Amino acid sequence: MADELSHLDERGAARMVDVSGKPETAREATAEALVVMQPATLRLILDGAVPKGDVIATARIAGIMAAKRTPDLIPLCHPLPITGVTVDIEPADDRTLRIWATVRTTGRTGVEMEALTAASVAALTVYDMCKAAEKGIRIEGVRLLEKLGGKSGRWTAEPPPQPPSR
Amino acid sequence: MADELSHLDERGAARMVDVSGKPETAREATAEALVVMQPATLRLILDGAVPKGDVIATARIAGIMAAKRTPDLIPLCHPLPITGVTVDIEPADDRTLRIWATVRTTGRTGVEMEALTAASVAALTVYDMCKAAEKGIRIEGVRLLEKLGGKSGRWTAEPPPQPPSR
Amino acid sequence: MADELSHLDERGAARMVDVSGKPETAREATAEALVVMQPATLRLILDGAVPKGDVIATARIAGIMAAKRTPDLIPLCHPLPITGVTVDIEPADDRTLRIWATVRTTGRTGVEMEALTAASVAALTVYDMCKAAEKGIRIEGVRLLEKLGGKSGRWTAEPPPQPPSR
Amino acid sequence: MADELSHLDERGAARMVDVSGKPETAREATAEALVVMQPATLRLILDGAVPKGDVIATARIAGIMAAKRTPDLIPLCHPLPITGVTVDIEPADDRTLRIWATVRTTGRTGVEMEALTAASVAALTVYDMCKAAEKGIRIEGVRLLEKLGGKSGRWTAEPPPQPPSR
Amino acid sequence: MADELSHLDERGAARMVDVSGKPETAREATAEALVVMQPATLRLILDGAVPKGDVIATARIAGIMAAKRTPDLIPLCHPLPITGVTVDIEPADDRTLRIWATVRTTGRTGVEMEALTAASVAALTVYDMCKAAEKGIRIEGVRLLEKLGGKSGRWTAEPPPQPPSR
Amino acid sequence: MADELSHLDERGAARMVDVSGKPETAREATAEALVVMQPATLRLILDGAVPKGDVIATARIAGIMAAKRTPDLIPLCHPLPITGVTVDIEPADDRTLRIWATVRTTGRTGVEMEALTAASVAALTVYDMCKAAEKGIRIEGVRLLEKLGGKSGRWTAEPPPQPPSR
Repeated sequence: MADELSHLDERGAARMVDVSGKPETAREATAEALVVMQPATLRLILDGAVPKGDVIATARIAGIMAAKRTPDLIPLCHPLPITGVTVDIEPADDRTLRIWATVRTTGRTGVEMEALTAASVAALTVYDMCKAAEKGIRIEGVRLLEKLGGKSGRWTAEPPPQPPSR
Repeated sequence: MADELSHLDERGAARMVDVSGKPETAREATAEALVVMQPATLRLILDGAVPKGDVIATARIAGIMAAKRTPDLIPLCHPLPITGVTVDIEPADDRTLRIWATVRTTGRTGVEMEALTAASVAALTVYDMCKAAEKGIRIEGVRLLEKLGGKSGRWTAEPPPQPPSR
Repeated sequence: MADELSHLDERGAARMVDVSGKPETAREATAEALVVMQPATLRLILDGAVPKGDVIATARIAGIMAAKRTPDLIPLCHPLPITGVTVDIEPADDRTLRIWATVRTTGRTGVEMEALTAASVAALTVYDMCKAAEKGIRIEGVRLLEKLGGKSGRWTAEPPPQPPSR
Repeated sequence: MADELSHLDERGAARMVDVSGKPETAREATAEALVVMQPATLRLILDGAVPKGDVIATARIAGIMAAKRTPDLIPLCHPLPITGVTVDIEPADDRTLRIWATVRTTGRTGVEMEALTAASVAALTVYDMCKAAEKGIRIEGVRLLEKLGGKSGRWTAEPPPQPPSR
Repeated sequence: MADELSHLDERGAARMVDVSGKPETAREATAEALVVMQPATLRLILDGAVPKGDVIATARIAGIMAAKRTPDLIPLCHPLPITGVTVDIEPADDRTLRIWATVRTTGRTGVEMEALTAASVAALTVYDMCKAAEKGIRIEGVRLLEKLGGKSGRWTAEPPPQPPSR
Repeated sequence: MADELSHLDERGAARMVDVSGKPETAREATAEALVVMQPATLRLILDGAVPKGDVIATARIAGIMAAKRTPDLIPLCHPLPITGVTVDIEPADDRTLRIWATVRTTGRTGVEMEALTAASVAALTVYDMCKAAEKGIRIEGVRLLEKLGGKSGRWTAEPPPQPPSR
């Protein structure tokens, strides 16, 4: 297992792993984040005094843009020409907003980090826009749900995640 | 409570709130994130086949740099001249790496988003460096622990968080 | 008048003008851009097959974020701690979307470039989101409307611009 | 026409359109912007007290660099490996500076936004460098002139634009 | 001397040093870089087949813009509101181009890194623009020349550097 | 030789050279930088009061991240999908830290600038972390060591450089 920490060379020094020899293949990754808050805060977002949608629209845009900034943020992450991003945001229960980000590319490495970064930054944006109402909002369950393509093929989280209602 | 969603104007449109009239005061915020993994993965990071410290050193640098990028990532976040950042990373138990980020500034708004972004990006970096060993790593409990300064003064999460062992 | 091209030194070389000696004062600037298109395209944006608001919400966020990136884009522009940004977008007639951006800071130089950049990038975002429907969309009348603060005080375009309906 | 607003999904939510299935083809786009000012200001730029060329050289560099930053600015724009950029700047009459930007790539989507962004940021840079002399400078006629490549092939503005004198 | 490595905390972990308690004072730093090449290459830049000045104009703009990007590049460097940058570039002898960058701010820490980064990136830009003619160009003597302001006051390199001919 | 200054068009204006017609081939470049300091400063880094490795780990990360930022810094440099980066840092003698950066891609142009930028920014980061101990540290000998791939094939500096001890 040790040699799987492939970001570290034989001496433990950080490096960006050489993927020059890998073929370009279609890749896709989906990640999830949950934003947990008071029901009153979630109602404010969904149907409160403010027009429905704008917190969610802003968080969605932030997530999409963050997917593109991933290699600027994650030191050893390869830059990749992303070919598609969707960010779905919907309530999971009366106190949880669920964020679901899918990223696609054709490249030599996967887009797990792009999907996780998109979900995380969308969640942080929800926090930012609601922190005046509730500072105790938490981001939970940031995780990879699924990954397609590349030599290792398909990987799915256990238990299999439920897709957004779209 | 509705009017506290201050990032939205009276019509619900997103805006960067005008803080011109606020005085510049000393501010500080501390946020936390937990990275939950298999014990074998955590051992790899801490004292495994790779020299201890480099995953952690890389994640720490990523968190510090991300604090400075916060206004580029969070759409309605004010740019602030950060005056100090520390990122502590240590095991909380045999399967959890705890990340603790403190950001300081002298400015017109707080640095909660900077602290939360630093903790999140440090956690994502741990994921990136260990994903070859374990794809199911999760980031949990991303939350504000404490906030000092500004008109609203001190705010502390409940129950009060335990400081890093430093 | 020649010596007013203050970005060029005595030999014509570009420089970032030294403003160290100027006091920090409250500053504000408002700029405008018009996006001119076919009436059918504007109807699509405003009340067409797509839910009203999302093109506009995306363009608004893009404008706000671009205001913060101004010193990265405009070579000789000073970095400034922006304290507020609003971007209003509304139809001016049946083929024109009007974008109105106001930026505030407390600093040693004005925020004209931040306001003009916000308006321009919001307009470019409208183009991007509608170009599949109409490639001939044009951006017209990008200009400063008003500037407040600093040694030169207030400046207003002639004829005085009409404020957004907000 | 409605379904051509392809940046919005079936529910109107913003997304980065999936272009994974498109082939990589040679693409080219040319855009134009006009900077309209007082004749005295244009003379300052062209042959005034300052050495000819530096305002123009700075604006050209700003435009080229902005083409590379396009996906950071335009939320739903795909990142593309640009393979060439030229920015031509020349007087169109005694009060107008004309900016003409051409961008090339081999990719899955076009480079219209890159060309428009290059022209816009070059124009904003001219404003920035001349605003001490004239605050009323306006940017007009930002538009796509021509687009080559991709499934839709060639598109040319009407009436056909005149090329730069180069 | 050991405790002067102030970027490392008591355990050797990297941190952004807390400067919250320092007063804001006027700061200035000047740095130098030398680009050493074949005389034929330098003649190409200065008076060769290409109009004099454009390599130098591009390098100057790159240096000024890089000064603003310094905290994005240097992990533990504080963001500072730069108030002025000049980059002078002139031949030192028949094979050496000398780059001289001065940066000013009013802030809590110095701008040494901004000046060194400006000089380095200007030098790299000269390399980039001339590498087709000569790959063996070297950048030498990147160093701080002078630093003013802050608690430690003035510091000057030994022997005292000669100013640019401006 | 004059026509080799290919970043300038026939009129001397800067442009990003069109490489659309070049094939994508495997590319590699290695660059070097030397950081020269007092022996006492180097000892502080290597085995002093601070745990060995953290200055070096931070500089290595900074260099890797800077390689990815190269087209944002060097105006006429093409964006490239980097496929691998290593940065080696080791003492060359009792007062010199040697930085050795290798960058790989599959693309239409080489990665010389990425390797040189990685080495330079790693060197600047060493300066930043040690400047409290010694302001007179100098960066010397920033140069290309080797370049592979592309039409011009292999190029090696003279005399041939010695590889890192790894």
